[in-house]
Amino acid sequence: MNNYWNERARNLSPYTPGEQPKDRQFIKLNTNENPYPPSPKVIEAVKKAADDSLRLYPDPECTAFREAAAACYGVNPQQVFAGNGSDEILAFAFGAFFEKTILFPDITYSFYPVYADLWDIPYSLIPLREDFSINISDYRIPSDGVVISNPNAPTGIALELNDIIFLAEFLERQKKVFIVDEAYAAFGAQSAVTLINKFPNLLIVNTLSKSTSLAGLRAGFAIGNENLIEGLRRMRDSFNSYTLDRLALAGGEAAVKDTQYYSGINSRVIATRERVTEILRSLNFTVLPSCANFIFIRFSSLGGRELFQALREQGILVRHFNRERIADFIRVSIGTDEQMDIFIKTCKDITERRKG
Amino acid sequence: MNNYWNERARNLSPYTPGEQPKDRQFIKLNTNENPYPPSPKVIEAVKKAADDSLRLYPDPECTAFREAAAACYGVNPQQVFAGNGSDEILAFAFGAFFEKTILFPDITYSFYPVYADLWDIPYSLIPLREDFSINISDYRIPSDGVVISNPNAPTGIALELNDIIFLAEFLERQKKVFIVDEAYAAFGAQSAVTLINKFPNLLIVNTLSKSTSLAGLRAGFAIGNENLIEGLRRMRDSFNSYTLDRLALAGGEAAVKDTQYYSGINSRVIATRERVTEILRSLNFTVLPSCANFIFIRFSSLGGRELFQALREQGILVRHFNRERIADFIRVSIGTDEQMDIFIKTCKDITERRKG
Repeated sequence: MNNYWNERARNLSPYTPGEQPKDRQFIKLNTNENPYPPSPKVIEAVKKAADDSLRLYPDPECTAFREAAAACYGVNPQQVFAGNGSDEILAFAFGAFFEKTILFPDITYSFYPVYADLWDIPYSLIPLREDFSINISDYRIPSDGVVISNPNAPTGIALELNDIIFLAEFLERQKKVFIVDEAYAAFGAQSAVTLINKFPNLLIVNTLSKSTSLAGLRAGFAIGNENLIEGLRRMRDSFNSYTLDRLALAGGEAAVKDTQYYSGINSRVIATRERVTEILRSLNFTVLPSCANFIFIRFSSLGGRELFQALREQGILVRHFNRERIADFIRVSIGTDEQMDIFIKTCKDITERRKG
Repeated sequence: MNNYWNERARNLSPYTPGEQPKDRQFIKLNTNENPYPPSPKVIEAVKKAADDSLRLYPDPECTAFREAAAACYGVNPQQVFAGNGSDEILAFAFGAFFEKTILFPDITYSFYPVYADLWDIPYSLIPLREDFSINISDYRIPSDGVVISNPNAPTGIALELNDIIFLAEFLERQKKVFIVDEAYAAFGAQSAVTLINKFPNLLIVNTLSKSTSLAGLRAGFAIGNENLIEGLRRMRDSFNSYTLDRLALAGGEAAVKDTQYYSGINSRVIATRERVTEILRSLNFTVLPSCANFIFIRFSSLGGRELFQALREQGILVRHFNRERIADFIRVSIGTDEQMDIFIKTCKDITERRKG
């Protein structure tokens, strides 16, 4: 079979997104969605945009959304690129900036090797330390560029801004691009956006899916110097001129403007994460120190797959990665306090049953 | 400059979409949008989808939208792929199915050579006949596949279904993919969807932007055998798992279901096109025989650029392509009868001024 696929299509190993169950009601802690709804101003803006003007193409430059994001971060709109989620932006960035061997951690967002394969870019995996943190010095070696998620996924562990500077300086001397994926930064890491005027090789990628509660809207943005932004535009305009629809543009603009609402809900997510971390540790779970809206946890006498399965049977969806070094862990998105209380109680039951 | 772009990014010649004016009120006949609004059921469905569930990822399989499109065309949902407009689907298709030299007309949708460059696919341009029609026999030569827009753009001229069969048979014997881009088929061409079970190499690509009045929603679909659909999915899942947001999925589903509304407005577009064609011909314009929602026209003593510019000064936007063989033409989207009456009067003024 596969008569019609070319070599690229045959060789791809596509990314597998987390399950989106349709039938049964689960407590859904598997895809790092925000447990709180989007800002009411977003809903209002989207409803308002749902009118007869849908017959017209959207603004291909995404001007209003980019201007709002620029204002929010104190940068120039020419330093902002808008895309259909950070996934699309990363796909364009890999396609525009890398050719030879790039570096990223052995344990990180599992879409990075997929992008590299899509564009036929060789890559080298740099092992995390034993404690699953990134040793930034390991990346100061010859390469065609570096991609780091900060905080990292699925560990949740963040780098200091000084580490970002330390590597950005090294890569800038060689004119190599450094992508910092800040999908989860709003939950506790320091954003490197403040560094873009100093480091023209630094591209910060962000999404509205997590901290802005809009996984269903498909919007994200990248911030960096104009040359990098222009490279992304060239890729976009060679692929699909309009990747954000009128509704996503309207909702995205309203979202980045409503920082007050979002810092409110994200503070709640952080508080829940800290509380849950403490309880799970008291129950003898290993919990990596997370700066994200998820935790990466392990229970000594239970395999990750087993824990995942036992939780699923109790109606709780989490994510398990069947990969070296982390097969014993599960990744748990932070839900509401009520959801997390059920999660903790279920974990307790499962692990006690195990002992008993 | 361009320090950070790789060879691909440097060599791209991105597509230029038609102007989307922000300041002045134009009669906008330049991007083939439908002059009539989307179905009220679409607006209703989008507004309904604008709720707190936007915090959750959309269905990556686009199940409900695909099922609705499948029902509308009498095919199996497994034979349908959903994408962010036909542009994205074409980008994936070029990336999945072609490697060596492919064929398309010298005058056609100007995104095709851009996709070929993006994926580094060589291509050979097959000249249209003198009368700007496609001679299908010209494509029965060795190649890695063929892409044809039916009706063709920007000419508007359609092929017969027999021509499609004639080429599909030839290409299927060589296991080469034949993409038929039916973006404008609803305005007068025969769809080749009926042939997909006979020709497993045939991929029909369609969009909701034109005949469904939803250019601003970004949704489209492809219909073909399951192996082709799976190839598109592999590309999508190596690029961005969720390219249609919840609003586009809801609106798209409602749109493909409301065939009655759309056949009503599209009949009006066709009637207007026929009326305008007749009047323009009586004014000594050359008007190619169009089966699309646009016409491709020329006035002997005026260059295309000149006509474009004169219309623009009178507040009418059309499209001019500064390319060999067609530089004397302009492409005019069919607007409402009122808009087209103004267009005709303005053309009359411009050409009479020219004579006088």
